[in-house]
Amino acid sequence: MQADNASTGRLSLDQPLDSASTATLQEWESQLSQRYEAFKQANLKLDLTRGKPSSQQLDLSNGMMTVLGSDLSNEAGTDLRNYGGIDGIAECKALFAPVLDVNSDEILVGGNSSLTLMYFAVMFALHQGFGDLGDSWASEGKTAKFLCPVPGYDRHFSVCEHLGIDMIPVAMDENGPDMDQVESLVRQDDSIKGIWCVPRFSNPTGIVYSDEVVSRIAGLGKIAGRNFRVFWDNAYAVHSFSDDSPQVASLMAACRAAGTENSVYLFGSTSKITYAGAGVAFAGMSAANLTAFKAHLGMTQIGPDKINQLRHARFLKDQDGLAQHMRDHAAALKPRFDIVLKHLNEGLADSGMLSWTEPQGGYFVSVDTLPGLAKQVVGMAADAGVKLTPAGATYPYGNDPEDRNIRLAPSVPTLEEIDQAMAVFVTCVQLASVRQKLA
Amino acid sequence: MQADNASTGRLSLDQPLDSASTATLQEWESQLSQRYEAFKQANLKLDLTRGKPSSQQLDLSNGMMTVLGSDLSNEAGTDLRNYGGIDGIAECKALFAPVLDVNSDEILVGGNSSLTLMYFAVMFALHQGFGDLGDSWASEGKTAKFLCPVPGYDRHFSVCEHLGIDMIPVAMDENGPDMDQVESLVRQDDSIKGIWCVPRFSNPTGIVYSDEVVSRIAGLGKIAGRNFRVFWDNAYAVHSFSDDSPQVASLMAACRAAGTENSVYLFGSTSKITYAGAGVAFAGMSAANLTAFKAHLGMTQIGPDKINQLRHARFLKDQDGLAQHMRDHAAALKPRFDIVLKHLNEGLADSGMLSWTEPQGGYFVSVDTLPGLAKQVVGMAADAGVKLTPAGATYPYGNDPEDRNIRLAPSVPTLEEIDQAMAVFVTCVQLASVRQKLA
Repeated sequence: MQADNASTGRLSLDQPLDSASTATLQEWESQLSQRYEAFKQANLKLDLTRGKPSSQQLDLSNGMMTVLGSDLSNEAGTDLRNYGGIDGIAECKALFAPVLDVNSDEILVGGNSSLTLMYFAVMFALHQGFGDLGDSWASEGKTAKFLCPVPGYDRHFSVCEHLGIDMIPVAMDENGPDMDQVESLVRQDDSIKGIWCVPRFSNPTGIVYSDEVVSRIAGLGKIAGRNFRVFWDNAYAVHSFSDDSPQVASLMAACRAAGTENSVYLFGSTSKITYAGAGVAFAGMSAANLTAFKAHLGMTQIGPDKINQLRHARFLKDQDGLAQHMRDHAAALKPRFDIVLKHLNEGLADSGMLSWTEPQGGYFVSVDTLPGLAKQVVGMAADAGVKLTPAGATYPYGNDPEDRNIRLAPSVPTLEEIDQAMAVFVTCVQLASVRQKLA
Repeated sequence: MQADNASTGRLSLDQPLDSASTATLQEWESQLSQRYEAFKQANLKLDLTRGKPSSQQLDLSNGMMTVLGSDLSNEAGTDLRNYGGIDGIAECKALFAPVLDVNSDEILVGGNSSLTLMYFAVMFALHQGFGDLGDSWASEGKTAKFLCPVPGYDRHFSVCEHLGIDMIPVAMDENGPDMDQVESLVRQDDSIKGIWCVPRFSNPTGIVYSDEVVSRIAGLGKIAGRNFRVFWDNAYAVHSFSDDSPQVASLMAACRAAGTENSVYLFGSTSKITYAGAGVAFAGMSAANLTAFKAHLGMTQIGPDKINQLRHARFLKDQDGLAQHMRDHAAALKPRFDIVLKHLNEGLADSGMLSWTEPQGGYFVSVDTLPGLAKQVVGMAADAGVKLTPAGATYPYGNDPEDRNIRLAPSVPTLEEIDQAMAVFVTCVQLASVRQKLA
């Protein structure tokens, strides 16, 4: 065992778990237990649960609060204070269409929540159908099913659960969902009506879908029936840590090549660009899909908050303005991720106790413990004052069948807090793994 | 026939339609036709369709755009820029709870659209139920039905139509819905799950529900099953033309007296207080209803735009601030309504051709032509360059069985435009009525 590094609280084990003798394991257990108990006495109160921007990041957009002068009309001369305009203002369409890589007649800009747009999209598909493009899933008389690449985003899963849609987990790797499995399932079962995707800096694994995966996702519309839709939540489309971070291929371009434009819905928002609670959301889809979607959405509202849209357009300006703004976000985020990864690498590399991703953007580091230990590690960390996202949250129905996945969200705490929290986390993983091995 | 009043374009007929001889009718027809043709030559382009605030009214709230300083936290110290707070900020609850006359733990403040809150409320009731309070309407296995007092608000009706809920029209008079009919229907048919109400300055008739009607509405919860809800859209709660305008009794107080607090949902918004497109909406309901509603709403979004809520709270301040602000709106609106009523009174009083309401608040004047003439009058006005709300729009499925009701919305045009438009309208009513009598 390496000497304890008092300044950071790290403890490095000098051989992999599998090669350690029982005596070594017992010695580790004793020392780790002491460290863990010491953490418990320290009355820490740390939180790595929240995938939301820090105050430092939110401050980057404070200029948005004063960017509107007395002119509250847009370039078309529309008084944006009044009712109307279900699909949002032209300035925001022009700004966000490139983010989703769709045409300016293939985008709708809405209120502050892309989750609401996604909820409505699923709900309309389930109960009202797609206008000229297809019938409602409910009208087919079978319970609709969604494919859910795992680990994934709990709020996608809760939309399905709330609407009574069954979920089928699908494996993910560093390239995206297992497309052999996805295609095979879609081929076998025509009650599968959708798939959730977070294609760039996936929540939580941070991986970026490979070009091949994007192309095969675009091809699903040829395998599935006309009522199938890909739900492409490009939540982190521009949220990279550097200009060199991997890009995701254009889904709509792949669909145009495959002739499957009507099989996909794309989503995004500025929740992690400007203000998490007061941003604007947008949805991209073929013009035909958009016609049907707008007709449904118009039953639920007269229009979105166009003043807040104008605020966004004038503040972010254009693609260059957006890119520079996201570089400022990266400057706040990357050091936090670096600390998380430093702890994992120094404390657990080659330990045989934990695997993890090293994302180049997004908001999360996803880790996998040894089977059966995720809940225990989260519980141990909680007892030592470090709050983590509940184990299982990244799986449909909260059920991680191997009990392995934990999502770490380091955006909000200070660098020092992350340093403390990760020291605790590494110790919890080590101790839980050693105890399991001894048991 | 009175001399033509050239300055206003009015033409007064000197006896009621029913007592006019055929010769008189023919003379009227000839003169009215000439007048009507002259209007058609004038290339007017006037619009009385839109129940929305004028630019002059919107200007009253421009101070809201600069009311936020650099402090974007609320009194509780919450950073309102970030995610969270599904039920809105305390400051807005305190401001709007008195508008609905509910307690501060009986209100949720949302995004910019009360229609969205209403849509969700109906949709959750239909598909997801009321948590501990009751099952979904869909689970009862029968098509749910709503009572729709007519004439009413077309967007209420389209929510029902979109969600597959059948609508039963119910008569309205100057006191509100015909409660004998309402109670009888609710007693007979347990698939009736709701009723739409606009209790003060009803859309479109402008009437205010009487105390007895409010009390009997509160009593419906004792007649109907636990899954019944009143949808109380108090859209014009503070939208009176003077401080003496009639008040509506408190529905929640009546429900507390009757023990039926769980049978009602109340709604309101600032769409006609601040900015029509960028206001805030709110819903009032019992704490038990609110618990269930929030759980459902939390599946569709993380929270509303709290920054815009803060903007509203700081701008409107308190009940006095709100009342003064609404007096400024009244100063813009009342002269417009006065012109509408002057034309109706001078051109059609005691004519036997038209009946109408004289609202003391709200956005509309509702008129009833002779049976079978509403569509024709709207068409004639359109041909003479005056756009009116389509006849039938105020009835479920767009079907006004007697083809009588027309909604006039004078808030947006200038006083001069209203004067011109009403001269055309009166002539159209006169001419259509005379021709019908001659036919």
